[in-house]
Amino acid sequence: MAEMNGAESLVHTLIAAGVDTVFANPGTSEMHFVAALDRIPGIRCVLCLDESVVAGAADAYYRMTGKPAATLLHCGPGLGNAISNLHNARRARSGIVNIVGDQATYHRPLDAPLTADTKALAHSVSAFVVEAASAATVGADAAAAIAAARAFPGQVATLILPADTAWDTGGMVAATLPAAGAKPVAPATIETVAALLGSGKPTMLLIGGAAMAAAPLLAAWRIAHHTGAKILLERSPARLPRGRKRAPVERIPYPIDQGIAAFAGIAQLILVNTGEPVSFFAYPGKPGRLYPADCVITVLSLPDEDGPAALAALAARLGVSEARPADAPPDPGPLPGPATGGAADPIAPEAFAQSLAALMPPDAIIIDEAISFGRGFFPRTHAAPPHDWLMLTGGAIGAGIPMAVGAAIGAPGRRVIALQADGSAMYSLAGLWTQAREALDVTTIILSNRKYAILLGELAGVGANPGRTALEMMDLSNPDLDWCQIAGGMGVPAARATGLDELNTQLAASLNRPGPFLIELIL
Amino acid sequence: MAEMNGAESLVHTLIAAGVDTVFANPGTSEMHFVAALDRIPGIRCVLCLDESVVAGAADAYYRMTGKPAATLLHCGPGLGNAISNLHNARRARSGIVNIVGDQATYHRPLDAPLTADTKALAHSVSAFVVEAASAATVGADAAAAIAAARAFPGQVATLILPADTAWDTGGMVAATLPAAGAKPVAPATIETVAALLGSGKPTMLLIGGAAMAAAPLLAAWRIAHHTGAKILLERSPARLPRGRKRAPVERIPYPIDQGIAAFAGIAQLILVNTGEPVSFFAYPGKPGRLYPADCVITVLSLPDEDGPAALAALAARLGVSEARPADAPPDPGPLPGPATGGAADPIAPEAFAQSLAALMPPDAIIIDEAISFGRGFFPRTHAAPPHDWLMLTGGAIGAGIPMAVGAAIGAPGRRVIALQADGSAMYSLAGLWTQAREALDVTTIILSNRKYAILLGELAGVGANPGRTALEMMDLSNPDLDWCQIAGGMGVPAARATGLDELNTQLAASLNRPGPFLIELIL
Repeated sequence: MAEMNGAESLVHTLIAAGVDTVFANPGTSEMHFVAALDRIPGIRCVLCLDESVVAGAADAYYRMTGKPAATLLHCGPGLGNAISNLHNARRARSGIVNIVGDQATYHRPLDAPLTADTKALAHSVSAFVVEAASAATVGADAAAAIAAARAFPGQVATLILPADTAWDTGGMVAATLPAAGAKPVAPATIETVAALLGSGKPTMLLIGGAAMAAAPLLAAWRIAHHTGAKILLERSPARLPRGRKRAPVERIPYPIDQGIAAFAGIAQLILVNTGEPVSFFAYPGKPGRLYPADCVITVLSLPDEDGPAALAALAARLGVSEARPADAPPDPGPLPGPATGGAADPIAPEAFAQSLAALMPPDAIIIDEAISFGRGFFPRTHAAPPHDWLMLTGGAIGAGIPMAVGAAIGAPGRRVIALQADGSAMYSLAGLWTQAREALDVTTIILSNRKYAILLGELAGVGANPGRTALEMMDLSNPDLDWCQIAGGMGVPAARATGLDELNTQLAASLNRPGPFLIELIL
Repeated sequence: MAEMNGAESLVHTLIAAGVDTVFANPGTSEMHFVAALDRIPGIRCVLCLDESVVAGAADAYYRMTGKPAATLLHCGPGLGNAISNLHNARRARSGIVNIVGDQATYHRPLDAPLTADTKALAHSVSAFVVEAASAATVGADAAAAIAAARAFPGQVATLILPADTAWDTGGMVAATLPAAGAKPVAPATIETVAALLGSGKPTMLLIGGAAMAAAPLLAAWRIAHHTGAKILLERSPARLPRGRKRAPVERIPYPIDQGIAAFAGIAQLILVNTGEPVSFFAYPGKPGRLYPADCVITVLSLPDEDGPAALAALAARLGVSEARPADAPPDPGPLPGPATGGAADPIAPEAFAQSLAALMPPDAIIIDEAISFGRGFFPRTHAAPPHDWLMLTGGAIGAGIPMAVGAAIGAPGRRVIALQADGSAMYSLAGLWTQAREALDVTTIILSNRKYAILLGELAGVGANPGRTALEMMDLSNPDLDWCQIAGGMGVPAARATGLDELNTQLAASLNRPGPFLIELIL
């Protein structure tokens, strides 16, 4: 076998470690990497037409598979375009092997036009950054990045690949490195938390991260029910198993006053794989921390610790088990049919959720970038078939369409339903094209209210009567976006729904046909 | 007058300094800034539906007006979305007052979901970064940022505005600070360069930046003609006056072999407001510097020096003046009519340029993100009516549609014609909506070749016979993008042209109607 170049050693190292999917938006400095992906079979390359799609897809792919995909980005500015969705991935604790091609090492000092501070951009979103120094180190650097990406519960790990380290010969395939697993929780911590739960004081379990899998959530629910504690989830779960037979748990409300109210009277707060609850934004005269000042916080498990095992141990310690039907979540009762309504009827979020619950197939994947309209979705979907719910973790809007791409590729055979605010959708439209090219089973519902509704609420909170300038900065009409045309232009068939009855018809039809579909729901 | 808050002091400081345009994509942490813009008249707010549009528009606005606009971006991830076009603005040396709302100062340590390393992101693209510490400093910080943005020839200056510094009272309007002007070139330098030009050795003037205005370019042309020197422009001019009565100058070719050939045999290279010529990317076995190893480089003027005055002084020193008709550029001869061709005829870039030259109105503004198809445009447009040509300076694709927004707002009454590669257009589609909302006189011509043509050329350069994986990563068909639908979805009327005859008809029609129009030209 001829001596391999750095790019070939990279591809072999990825394949050896089981990284078999690359979301790519290549440029000139990545041509040798592209050529290596072409020559060496074993990696599925998914072309995305901008980098925000690459990053959002890789994020959701990890959430669904638990294993990292690689990206292929072009220089600092290409990484710039991916920053917002890498930020969301960082907040989701998703593992991504983020590969950024860059100027050749010896060309960088010449400051050619595309030269940028790639390292600084990478550090802003990555837990691990390495720049290959030569073709000989590419394999080892890639192995280190893969291990970092896999470190429990998952991290963004960036490998910067200068062009000459890809094309020079001397590449060496590196063996897969072990990745850090979940750290165990000490038995003493279990005892401490058990005692708190038995103290009779108002106590809440706040659950996040890896503890939001189906089994630990049921364990937490039983513990809470058994001890009289409250239970709440972090505000924006990366992935939450929901529906029938899953724990019917709510999450921290987004509006600050509701967020504070959710923790009112709590004397003991127990954190499970999540941080202290804080408000999404600061507001004048309101606290940043949502819990009472005299509330005592105890950590059952940090995000990199084994919260699922800790919850199981805690349940055993408390004598709570699946064998006790009294501690099981109540049956949600029969699933209501779709909510009905004509074109003239306003559509409430709760009614929308009822239709969604009634029509979604088993094992659906819900991508939720519904923003303001989506706050009422949870109660009406507890009785739906089992499904996974993926949220906007970092608040950087524009994740929904890309995440639908990554979820569909990571979980073939399961239907993806993307609940997508119109304003947010405008940031990453190109993802629709990848949905069409890859024939992904994605139904996107554009919640078309033709405004930045969340900001109108925030502006009202500022107190002033908004004038024309302010209102126009929150208004997406004039002209109205025509989502059927936008989708059609990308190769995604689409239809407009006015009213719940039309939504029900179109949603049911889309779920029965393969490939992507978009419904523009006029709110 | 009641005590003002920080946001109000910011708006008053901007207005006092003559900053009267804000390209905005606001979020919650900017609500008090939005409210202040609403209450205090004097600033035009242009809503953009993603931040890459904000940044690209502000860049082109500066190129056309010579004065900075402000931006309004939302937190670190919003700044992330703007990085690529801020990178282009940095390379264009455009002045931008880049305002980024962020977490309240006391909320940042709580690491709420949208918290990111805003400062690191800002530094990666800015010559000046300041974060307001309190409402009392916002005015002074803004004045410093405005002065930095205006420093000759222009810079990206970022003001980070934590939410509490906007809403707290105690804001103080700051007086406008003087901005650094162009530094003078020493007379000894003029003498040195005059001697070089008289030495008889093969000499080239390489012109860039602020020296690319109409008068200094004509002076440079006359100097070159008079002394036998060659003359060339930097590769991607931020703004180049072209057409009849302007100097018919070419720019550094993009392909590395042509770039090296352009400098072959040059013994003396004189730089005027630009840096040494280097290749856009490195290639194996090829030099990064385009000029011969024994070429002597002399700087007539650095980018922050007064190149126009230096060229005028040099012309006077050499006895070259407008009074000598022999040194004037040759008349380009009569303007040919549009090139013709039916649907079955292939469209050469030169023929396209001939039609463009024949049909463009006087004082048109050409936005050139034509990428590979655009390399043959210059020779056939020398005889066109006077116009300005704005290029992709930093190589971060996705600038064209946003730049058309900013150029049209900066130069009302002039027609903008955007020559737009299809692949690049996908990065910033949302700019079409702003073109429609603001009823901007922009004709966009999508050069639809349905591939990343530039990358196919680069891949061929790598040497291998590309296989299916590589070819699919450069292929924008399957499905074909339907640009008429995409534009229509954003409120921009559109038509498809197959062949030059249809292009001519549609281009002429679009130039005679107000507002935006998009032509999908099938190549």
